[in-house]
Amino acid sequence: MISFTIKNVMIAVDNDYATVDVQIVDGAIAAISPNLQVIGTAIDGKNKLLLPGFFNAHTHSSEMWQRGIMSVFPLELWLAELYDFAPLDTEKVYLSALGTAVETLLSGGTSVVDHLVLIPGLELETIAIATRAYREVGIRAFIAPLIQDESLSAGMPSGESAQSHEPYFRSTAATLEIIEEAVRQFHRPDEGVSILVAPTGIQLCTDALFKGCIELSDRYNLCRHSHLLETKAQEKLAQEKYGCTAVEHLKRIGFLSDRTTLAHCVWLNDADIAILAETQSTVVHNPLSNLRLGSGIAPILKYRQAGVNVTFGCDGASSNDSQDLLEAIKIGSILHNVTDSDYQHWITPRQAIEMASLGGAKGFNLADKLGSLTVGKQADLVLYDLTNLSLLPRTDPIGLLVLGRPSNVVDSAWVNGKQIVADGKVTTINVDDLRQELFNRSQWETKRKSETVAQIEAHYRIVMGL
Amino acid sequence: MISFTIKNVMIAVDNDYATVDVQIVDGAIAAISPNLQVIGTAIDGKNKLLLPGFFNAHTHSSEMWQRGIMSVFPLELWLAELYDFAPLDTEKVYLSALGTAVETLLSGGTSVVDHLVLIPGLELETIAIATRAYREVGIRAFIAPLIQDESLSAGMPSGESAQSHEPYFRSTAATLEIIEEAVRQFHRPDEGVSILVAPTGIQLCTDALFKGCIELSDRYNLCRHSHLLETKAQEKLAQEKYGCTAVEHLKRIGFLSDRTTLAHCVWLNDADIAILAETQSTVVHNPLSNLRLGSGIAPILKYRQAGVNVTFGCDGASSNDSQDLLEAIKIGSILHNVTDSDYQHWITPRQAIEMASLGGAKGFNLADKLGSLTVGKQADLVLYDLTNLSLLPRTDPIGLLVLGRPSNVVDSAWVNGKQIVADGKVTTINVDDLRQELFNRSQWETKRKSETVAQIEAHYRIVMGL
Repeated sequence: MISFTIKNVMIAVDNDYATVDVQIVDGAIAAISPNLQVIGTAIDGKNKLLLPGFFNAHTHSSEMWQRGIMSVFPLELWLAELYDFAPLDTEKVYLSALGTAVETLLSGGTSVVDHLVLIPGLELETIAIATRAYREVGIRAFIAPLIQDESLSAGMPSGESAQSHEPYFRSTAATLEIIEEAVRQFHRPDEGVSILVAPTGIQLCTDALFKGCIELSDRYNLCRHSHLLETKAQEKLAQEKYGCTAVEHLKRIGFLSDRTTLAHCVWLNDADIAILAETQSTVVHNPLSNLRLGSGIAPILKYRQAGVNVTFGCDGASSNDSQDLLEAIKIGSILHNVTDSDYQHWITPRQAIEMASLGGAKGFNLADKLGSLTVGKQADLVLYDLTNLSLLPRTDPIGLLVLGRPSNVVDSAWVNGKQIVADGKVTTINVDDLRQELFNRSQWETKRKSETVAQIEAHYRIVMGL
Repeated sequence: MISFTIKNVMIAVDNDYATVDVQIVDGAIAAISPNLQVIGTAIDGKNKLLLPGFFNAHTHSSEMWQRGIMSVFPLELWLAELYDFAPLDTEKVYLSALGTAVETLLSGGTSVVDHLVLIPGLELETIAIATRAYREVGIRAFIAPLIQDESLSAGMPSGESAQSHEPYFRSTAATLEIIEEAVRQFHRPDEGVSILVAPTGIQLCTDALFKGCIELSDRYNLCRHSHLLETKAQEKLAQEKYGCTAVEHLKRIGFLSDRTTLAHCVWLNDADIAILAETQSTVVHNPLSNLRLGSGIAPILKYRQAGVNVTFGCDGASSNDSQDLLEAIKIGSILHNVTDSDYQHWITPRQAIEMASLGGAKGFNLADKLGSLTVGKQADLVLYDLTNLSLLPRTDPIGLLVLGRPSNVVDSAWVNGKQIVADGKVTTINVDDLRQELFNRSQWETKRKSETVAQIEAHYRIVMGL
């Protein structure tokens, strides 16, 4: 039974702040009010702000091994380079999951959604080791094994040419069997680890794979996760493949639902947006990778106006190249001001905070349990130190947090009531050892030459009219 | 005579890195080569990257007092709110100049360009106190006293209506006299403090003020600084005011030159861009405030293709709301990938670094003295700790620095050979005392109501077609 009481802490109320005590009993929020009795440990909340933990609602942890070095390329060429140099051992997967968890936590996230790249032939081992890493750190983990059943070259529109693609190395049925086995072994929502069905996207998946995922989702009550229309090339491809938009197709086959989260959503038209609203699907906005890869600016203000739920992700560290969630929230808020001259539609800092917390909880079917400071909800909480230089002078704490560039501001974090950050440091693992391991297993290098890029670049430029 | 030698440090060479020793003698770079003799103090450069210091080439230091709390507004309304609550004492100016210097330094900047808001009636005192702050920190300072000779309401296009504006409280001649006096008292380039002539922009300045500034610039060899076409409203205003574009007008009156830096430059057409190239003017790109205020995306890739020099600024902390230069460099690089589908035009991390260092030096007429690791240049240097978690695993250090989200990575910084950051801490002032002062002189608050915004908002919405 974990119980503690945070004394004299600022929380957000309506358009103001209040200073209160917050009682946590047995991992849940038991009371929020001034002058509460201390139950369990007393935590000093003075000059601190308490917020619900945020969701890093889309990332690929093992991309951390290639951050900083990927060429300045659009997604299709970038992917080819990424896979030419992807790491292939589970120890690296373990370390990068730890690193992703730590960076997410220290920027306000208490949940991470890892669209996890699986090592071919070691699929369950990859899931096992990532699960172990997240359990060790104690962050809430949504592990979304990244699956496909078409080879990488199928992900590019063929244009005028007749392209044929090598078959994918593993059958659709075998892939679905791996996911079902992962659910049996690792899906423990009450312990903070959930497995999602997560086809990579329409560009590399057959309908059979999508339908198999839907069936597993229904049978085991799993959330669904996928990339959706990240690039203009994918919009073209959907038309070639289905003769309609990707969203229309996904609706038709039944993939969209109130527990479906869709990463990117850059190239949707108004009818597509209406479908997302109608199906209560959630958009995961990854503003930084959308810029870095030149994918485009997702129409987030339109989503909000249409009533589509939106939350934020860092995306994998090869396309961002950080896992700082506060950075994603800042840029994911202010970026859209240039897309609509009417400032009354712009995202305010308080709205951004709600998107990052309750928006994530909704997307993963947990709005009744997470995402706000509400009595009865589980204690996934973050306490921010408001005396840090980056949050001074004192003005509006949430404005400073969202629109500033806070660093070293997370004082404490709890997941399900368990404290995993204290005094600004992760308490569950040794971060210095992690740094040493990451250092030892890597080397400084300059740009590399990707053979696959050399093979496909000319075709890409033709198809995209470059 | 300041002399020291950095041993075994990584530097960027061509498209690679080299590990070398760097000798600094009497504040200048004396030698760069492996296995040099240690002259003066030895500094351990192992696992560190040495780069030329960057320029925070446009900011307004006193805006730090309102960061985090400004409404989500476009520039014209935002300015009205800003001035309704602007701080009016020199002690606050001093503290925010210190804060701006510290945040700039700890994110790689060794030069700051402060387009300094002057307290009415205390203009020279404002300049004096900011100068004192920058001298105390030891950062290289370009103080650009922000001047105008038209009242704030003149900055908005009149549209169909006939608007009259109150005269500005100070005459053009009196304003120019203040600047000339500031030059006499504070312009000491050899000591690291330069005064610039800095009319706020075409929206609030008469030709008489611009011409007076040009005359002072020529007489005292001063650089010129101004805002230029930050918003669509200013583009409209220029047409109303001059019957041509603002750039055409500034060229005609002779303001553009190879020592003219122009902040924002969002709303320029192709002919305007050609004029900037021809006059060798420099664009200061402030990507974050351009997003926050919804001003637009400056056509930076076009500037680069036209041969226009570009460097970066954070802009004032009320419109950003941080002074993290690495953040401005990252967003100012990747933002433009969505404006041009041909990735061969995108800004690479190495190009971004050069824009931030040599680009700034060029803009302030110091390319022969600053902006690169070149024997003979002055030692404005920054040493980055490559063992920080945010720069691991080891890949391409410059890629990690520009595309990641580095925090706490500046190990050391020198200006003119004087060390002012060591072991990640500013050595010249007590930053904890500064934090305490900023804390004590402020209070947490929620959004305020600006009376001026209430007066002008309806007109703004009509003129802008909202």
